Amino acid sequence: MRYELHYWPGIQGRGEFVRLALEDAGAKYRDVWRESDRLSPHRQAFAPPYLKAGRLIIPQTANILLFLGPRLGLAPKSEAARLHLHGQQLTIADWLAEVHDTHHPIASSLYYEDQKREARRRSRIFLAERLPKFMRYFEREADAKFSYVHLSLFQMIEGLRYAFPRAMSRSESKFSRLQRLHDRVAARPRLAKYLASERRIPFNQQGIFRHYPELDAR
Amino acid sequence: MRYELHYWPGIQGRGEFVRLALEDAGAKYRDVWRESDRLSPHRQAFAPPYLKAGRLIIPQTANILLFLGPRLGLAPKSEAARLHLHGQQLTIADWLAEVHDTHHPIASSLYYEDQKREARRRSRIFLAERLPKFMRYFEREADAKFSYVHLSLFQMIEGLRYAFPRAMSRSESKFSRLQRLHDRVAARPRLAKYLASERRIPFNQQGIFRHYPELDAR
Repeated sequence: MRYELHYWPGIQGRGEFVRLALEDAGAKYRDVWRESDRLSPHRQAFAPPYLKAGRLIIPQTANILLFLGPRLGLAPKSEAARLHLHGQQLTIADWLAEVHDTHHPIASSLYYEDQKREARRRSRIFLAERLPKFMRYFEREADAKFSYVHLSLFQMIEGLRYAFPRAMSRSESKFSRLQRLHDRVAARPRLAKYLASERRIPFNQQGIFRHYPELDAR
Repeated sequence: MRYELHYWPGIQGRGEFVRLALEDAGAKYRDVWRESDRLSPHRQAFAPPYLKAGRLIIPQTANILLFLGPRLGLAPKSEAARLHLHGQQLTIADWLAEVHDTHHPIASSLYYEDQKREARRRSRIFLAERLPKFMRYFEREADAKFSYVHLSLFQMIEGLRYAFPRAMSRSESKFSRLQRLHDRVAARPRLAKYLASERRIPFNQQGIFRHYPELDAR
C-alpha cells in the first residue's frame, strides 16, 4: 500500500504527526501537496490533513493514526489497546489546539498582530496551568510500550521547546521520563535520518508552534 | 453490558453526546457522578467524560462513541464506515471546542466576566466565518444513513439555538437538511421520551453552550 498524505506544504502542522509515523515505520507514501505544489482539498475532510489509502479518504490526524497504527506496527491490534492509545492521541490533539490558540486566541483568520494582547493573556495562563497539567498526564505514560503516541509526544516536546524555550527549560526537568522519551525517539534510526533530511520542514512562524518571545515565560 | 458514564453532574456538556447515544439505543447505563453525587476522576482520563465498559476505561467523547457505535446499532461494523463517521465526530468535537471558546477565549479557569471583551471579538468572527463553514460541511452529510453522528448534530443545533438564537434563526434556513435532521432526531421515540424526562439536564450558564445576549448576532 502506498499512502497519500494531503496537507499544507509549508508547515509541519498537524500533518507532521502523520509524517513521523510514516517515516518511523519506513512506509511508502507521497506527500502530495508538497510534491505537486498543488492543493487538493477533499469534500470529505473539513480541513487537512487527510490520508488516502486505496479508496479510503481518512480525515482528522488522530483518526489517521488510529488507522495507521496497527498497519505500521506502531500500535497493538487489540481493541482495548487501540482505544487506550487513541484516547491519548485525542488528548494530544486537544493540547495542540491549545498551543495554537496561545498565538491565535481570537481567530485563525486574523493576523497575530491583531490579537497580540489577547495572545499574551492566553499564553500566560497556558504556561502556568495547562502546560504542567498536560505534561503531568503524559509523564505517567512515557514508559509504556512504544507506539505512535510516543512519536506525537516527541513532536509536542520539540514544538514546545521551539515556541516557549524559557518556559520549557524551566519546567521540563520536572518531567524526566518525557525528556528521556524525547531522546529515545530522536535516536530511532529511521526517524533520526528523517529529522536530518530535507523532508523535515523546519519550524517556522506560519505553523502551529510559533516562537514569539513576548509570549514565553519571563 | 451495563455501561458507566462518568461526567460532571450539573451540565449537559460533552457527556450529553454520550447520553444521547445510550438513550436512543435504550442501553442500560449508570450516570455515575449524577447518581452518587460523588466525582470520581480516573488517572487514565485527562478530563471527563469517560466510559467504563467492564474492565475498559474509555476517555474522550469521540472515542467513546467510536466504541459504542456498532455495539448500540448506531454505526455500521465495517472499518471504512466507522472511520468515516469518526472523522465527522472529531470535526464535531472541534466545532464544540470553538463554541466553548466563544465565551472562554482566554482561559477556562477565568470567569466569563474577566474575558468578556475578548469573548465578543471571538464570537463575532465565529458567527460570521466558522458557524456557516461547519453548517455547510454537515449539511451535505445530513441525509446519510442514520448514525450516532446525527444524534450529535441534533445536539449541536439544539445548543447553538440556545446560545445564539438570533444568529441561528437567521442562518438556519440556509441549511434545510440539517433542520429536518434535527426534527427527525427529536421525534425518535426513545429520544423524545428522554428529552422530556428529568434525566435531560436543561441548558444552563455553566455548560458549553451558554446564552449571553451580547455575544449573539445583533
